Amino acid sequence: MVAFEESGDPADFQDPAYREAVIDLLGAISYGEISAFERLAEDSKMAPAIRDKMALATMAAAELGHVARLHERLTELGADPYDAMAPFIAPIEKFHRHTAPADWYEGLVKAYVGDGLAADFYREIAAYLDSATRDLVIASLEDSGQADFVVDRIRQAIATTPSVGGRLALWGRRLMGEALTQAQRVAAERDALSALLAGDIDRPGLDLAAIGRMFTRITDRHAERMAELGLSS
Amino acid sequence: MVAFEESGDPADFQDPAYREAVIDLLGAISYGEISAFERLAEDSKMAPAIRDKMALATMAAAELGHVARLHERLTELGADPYDAMAPFIAPIEKFHRHTAPADWYEGLVKAYVGDGLAADFYREIAAYLDSATRDLVIASLEDSGQADFVVDRIRQAIATTPSVGGRLALWGRRLMGEALTQAQRVAAERDALSALLAGDIDRPGLDLAAIGRMFTRITDRHAERMAELGLSS
Repeated sequence: MVAFEESGDPADFQDPAYREAVIDLLGAISYGEISAFERLAEDSKMAPAIRDKMALATMAAAELGHVARLHERLTELGADPYDAMAPFIAPIEKFHRHTAPADWYEGLVKAYVGDGLAADFYREIAAYLDSATRDLVIASLEDSGQADFVVDRIRQAIATTPSVGGRLALWGRRLMGEALTQAQRVAAERDALSALLAGDIDRPGLDLAAIGRMFTRITDRHAERMAELGLSS
Repeated sequence: MVAFEESGDPADFQDPAYREAVIDLLGAISYGEISAFERLAEDSKMAPAIRDKMALATMAAAELGHVARLHERLTELGADPYDAMAPFIAPIEKFHRHTAPADWYEGLVKAYVGDGLAADFYREIAAYLDSATRDLVIASLEDSGQADFVVDRIRQAIATTPSVGGRLALWGRRLMGEALTQAQRVAAERDALSALLAGDIDRPGLDLAAIGRMFTRITDRHAERMAELGLSS
């Protein structure tokens, strides 16, 4: 990994491929958060009580709350935030279309597991970024403090109706599978973004073995989250 | 109007009727904001572009952002926030059911006019409150800075299709009428809240003429907002 300058416009941004990769990344995260807002707001309608609705709505609002800063940074980099988001609309919408929760509990698991997966993935990428971008990415992943609520509700549901556990465990696997499918699609289509991970002559990146270890870390954390919910993954 | 203590637990809260009125008010505002979040998030789906969607979604998130502080205050007053909101669910939901926007522009006008009406109304009531509660109510009415966006979009729509203006002007009247209907229903059912405006032996309130003037101020401001949108009310 290269040393980056701490402030303003790091030397890396002189490299058009690096700048393009950062614009892609911030665009993807931005649209991911807008889209998460929409889906969580929609899923919050299935809540059995206002208290539950509030929890999911709070998660939704937290996602949206990060977008303004990401868009500002895109503008600073000379990019139009809406153009930057455009390439990621189709894969992100496809992810949501393929993982539309059938009920309140599937919605809760999706909120918890989906948020966690996205955060893990972006955190891994953030390690390869200049410090200003890295800080911005990490800040945009802050959760809304509703995780305990989700864990509590899912564990309660399984305690009351044990068969719910098997169904939600399958659901968790489906979420993971669909996330990987769409991530892989993005990687195949966005050269600059995947070059960021793969590295080039000036910027050492990950070899195949390191990419493998990265996915192992991400799937391990997914399994931990599923266990936290009382679900075997 | 009586002088209130500046801090903590004003003398007024010794009066059970005053405390009950404040709990009602904070409950009503809280549920109003949760419900506004839901409706704005729903209406944002009709947006013709992501940029527009973001504007309405940002208004939605801002509404929800005020709820936590209102709930904290309700808890400090010894009330359960969810119990405090319960009496206002039916009238607020009825308002929304009777004013479901048929398209994106009706949604925008509702966001702008509805938000403005609620803010004017609560600001009028806030004048009769102890300073801590007043500050909290005023803070919960801060808008999300999307007003210019709405004005711009509506004026543009009327410029392109003049007939839209007539339809949206009617829509604005319907919003006002439905808001008054539901507010009047709440006033009839919540004695403590209406007593706050009417006053009692210890706390001078509004006589009928003053209540009339208050409604004139609210309808005047509504007319100003409609004019701002390029709509005659």
